[in-house]
Amino acid sequence: MKIVVDMPEWIEQEMSRRPSVYPELADRIKLVVEFSRLNVVHDTGGPFGAGVFELETGKLVSIAVNRVVPCSVSCAHAEFGALALAQQKLGTFDLGGAGLPAHQLVVNWRPCTMCYGSVIWSGVRSLALAGSGKAVEEITGFDEGPIADDWIEELNRRGIEVHDNQDREAALEVFRLFRDSGKLVYNARLG
Amino acid sequence: MKIVVDMPEWIEQEMSRRPSVYPELADRIKLVVEFSRLNVVHDTGGPFGAGVFELETGKLVSIAVNRVVPCSVSCAHAEFGALALAQQKLGTFDLGGAGLPAHQLVVNWRPCTMCYGSVIWSGVRSLALAGSGKAVEEITGFDEGPIADDWIEELNRRGIEVHDNQDREAALEVFRLFRDSGKLVYNARLG
Repeated sequence: MKIVVDMPEWIEQEMSRRPSVYPELADRIKLVVEFSRLNVVHDTGGPFGAGVFELETGKLVSIAVNRVVPCSVSCAHAEFGALALAQQKLGTFDLGGAGLPAHQLVVNWRPCTMCYGSVIWSGVRSLALAGSGKAVEEITGFDEGPIADDWIEELNRRGIEVHDNQDREAALEVFRLFRDSGKLVYNARLG
Repeated sequence: MKIVVDMPEWIEQEMSRRPSVYPELADRIKLVVEFSRLNVVHDTGGPFGAGVFELETGKLVSIAVNRVVPCSVSCAHAEFGALALAQQKLGTFDLGGAGLPAHQLVVNWRPCTMCYGSVIWSGVRSLALAGSGKAVEEITGFDEGPIADDWIEELNRRGIEVHDNQDREAALEVFRLFRDSGKLVYNARLG
């Protein structure tokens, strides 16, 4: 008995012609937003991308996209993919463990209720987002679930810094592309 | 690039000599609490077990235990395992989708922040728990994360019924066994 969540083949092809290190946060954001867009273009999942980077150097550890529908796993959000790929690559459940450099999770939008919790358990020290708020729900119809208003403060209290609104307009453009493509919104019981 | 989360081999052995249908909720609870205990005894993960059942018939669809440390995935809580195994078995991300019977998630304790969200996205119509509250944190040292006080009402609003405190003492006994065994508490950055 095992669960397998795979990433689409185009990710490796895309990464083979891109840098493996992203010193600037703006370039990390650009990468995950571009992967959220490519996931719509390739029809390989929802409009979400996430990456785990070494916080200081910007070395890319893992990159992932939403795989809920193709993999039949409602938990296979981009954040889950990026965190689990990074953890299995490094051989630890704790990206903040002893002997490891600090890690940053970069996402094209604020994590949903579930992924908010997964960020806390992952051991990352930093969370960077292209944007946050209701716009994703208004444009796409996705449900993000109940999130407490103090989500940034709660993450800060737990030693996780938050960089929000790093490129809101670029993220929204992908959500509009997804909406206009008429693809499946995969809320449980289809909303 | 793929993520693999496997279940320990003893699960199939245990299930080969157990019923495949559990008409009574009490027996579903007993099964997941027993699997949480066996996961400690076999040293194959944290003290948590979860199963997905057909709500009306009690047919077992999937059963899972916590696999965070053995699989190096901080998201590999028992709920994640049971939900993803059931979804991949049925070939759908939505356990409440058209043409399917209603499904129930049964867990030995209230889901953490992350799994609370994953219950919402899974499509289950019912959540049954041996127990809930701070006792797990007080006994074991595990962190459950920030959970809103209205978690039952929120699930109800989303069409998910909740049966809490079905066998609190049995669940607590397993947490005490875990504590006394001196095994790893795997909060991110080890608390």
